[in-house]
Amino acid sequence: MSKLTLSAAEKIVDTALAKGGELGLKSLTVAVLDAGGHLVALKRQDGSSILRPQVASGKAYGAIAVGAGSRWLDENAKTRPHFVQALNGVAGGAIVPVPGGVLIRAGEGGEILGAVGISGDTSDNDEACAVAGIEAAGFSADRG
Amino acid sequence: MSKLTLSAAEKIVDTALAKGGELGLKSLTVAVLDAGGHLVALKRQDGSSILRPQVASGKAYGAIAVGAGSRWLDENAKTRPHFVQALNGVAGGAIVPVPGGVLIRAGEGGEILGAVGISGDTSDNDEACAVAGIEAAGFSADRG
Amino acid sequence: MSKLTLSAAEKIVDTALAKGGELGLKSLTVAVLDAGGHLVALKRQDGSSILRPQVASGKAYGAIAVGAGSRWLDENAKTRPHFVQALNGVAGGAIVPVPGGVLIRAGEGGEILGAVGISGDTSDNDEACAVAGIEAAGFSADRG
Amino acid sequence: MSKLTLSAAEKIVDTALAKGGELGLKSLTVAVLDAGGHLVALKRQDGSSILRPQVASGKAYGAIAVGAGSRWLDENAKTRPHFVQALNGVAGGAIVPVPGGVLIRAGEGGEILGAVGISGDTSDNDEACAVAGIEAAGFSADRG
Repeated sequence: MSKLTLSAAEKIVDTALAKGGELGLKSLTVAVLDAGGHLVALKRQDGSSILRPQVASGKAYGAIAVGAGSRWLDENAKTRPHFVQALNGVAGGAIVPVPGGVLIRAGEGGEILGAVGISGDTSDNDEACAVAGIEAAGFSADRG
Repeated sequence: MSKLTLSAAEKIVDTALAKGGELGLKSLTVAVLDAGGHLVALKRQDGSSILRPQVASGKAYGAIAVGAGSRWLDENAKTRPHFVQALNGVAGGAIVPVPGGVLIRAGEGGEILGAVGISGDTSDNDEACAVAGIEAAGFSADRG
Repeated sequence: MSKLTLSAAEKIVDTALAKGGELGLKSLTVAVLDAGGHLVALKRQDGSSILRPQVASGKAYGAIAVGAGSRWLDENAKTRPHFVQALNGVAGGAIVPVPGGVLIRAGEGGEILGAVGISGDTSDNDEACAVAGIEAAGFSADRG
Repeated sequence: MSKLTLSAAEKIVDTALAKGGELGLKSLTVAVLDAGGHLVALKRQDGSSILRPQVASGKAYGAIAVGAGSRWLDENAKTRPHFVQALNGVAGGAIVPVPGGVLIRAGEGGEILGAVGISGDTSDNDEACAVAGIEAAGFSADRG
């Protein structure tokens, strides 16, 4: 697939939520952003807390902002905290630099079409659900 | 219905989008917020412009903020502009005071469970789709 | 053309500035944004005042935000001021709702690839230069 | 040269991008700011991610803000993090304190005419391209 339509975004969200259910995870919030960092689809499961939409979107936005999955941001936040703090300064605080924000690429190493951000369980589990959704929709997942 | 679950919110969003298609409207963005003003579900159709998520959410948020559909805010913006500007002051600019933000009530005059906000076509058409979604999910719609 | 590359953006900027020189306009600032509202290229001519980059970008951003040239925003600002004020509320004040922000479309009525914003002379003259740049690069200009 | 004209800024940007190509670097974004910290010219190469304009500008702005290349800020962010955080507090978050923001001086130790900020590859490589651009335009580069 080379285009992120609403239909593809819905497939990503629904697959990610199904994956969470399958793995017995806590309630999740899943956000899909386009290549410009703008929301295409979001679902917050019953019991998922009130700030999750911003957290999920912030992981996805961070990934798109720097062109790398949010795991890359998490690593940089540890080794170069002043850099990631500054990124958030110019981003108006919109970036959540922990795993769970995964780039949607047209193919392995291909064009960035958007990103998925998930929040609710551990960052690693959030990320696994994002990857499942992206791959089910026929895209390539880039964790960073 | 007396509770706004994700499942009910999805029903609202999908019915509203179907209504837009039926009426031949422009691409829409539909947001459903819970009683606390927090996003539960959002879909942005292909071709719906990048600020629509904020506009749709801003109509719904405004409705919940004052406990009246955003049509009420639109009227007040004309007769008492300083009041609506001040509302947006305390709301950090999050309110979009034009029709298309409709309260989700448990029944006629019942408890407020959340709100739907729609943006993309004329404000009146946006509102009609919101009402269709709310009623299809078994709730009562309050336009303000 | 169906893609807004840096090379195409440079063509737009340079043609717009040449047009301004040809018409004997004041010093201009020209900004080209992609479909997500992010800067691709900007040039500020000698003597163009210090806020022009934000003004030019704000015209282009407003156009992309609502999917219409900024002339449409200018008209709405007169007939529905509370709506345009609210748009700027959810946009963090990033929109400049006067003519001079012109959508770059892949063809007549085609996909939005970005926008050009110009500031420095009258809004009408700014707009004329934007149109000249867009057309010279093989795209279709949408004034709103 | 003793004045940073748009023509000189274009020379800096184009030389920096050519240098990046020559070294086989990732896609870059290059920003040139005048002595008042205001944008004169910016180019974002195809594939350079969406936050790069703010990051590149933030390196250049930081350099001008303190009168030293952003390498100096990077060192201070490690030894005196509270100082750099406070700088960003008064700067509204506009500073990115890592190498790649280089002062444009009229000559060795001469007047500050502006700064170049580059983002996209490693900070060291970004800085090398900035220096190449500044020197090609006949100015003196101050890394900090």
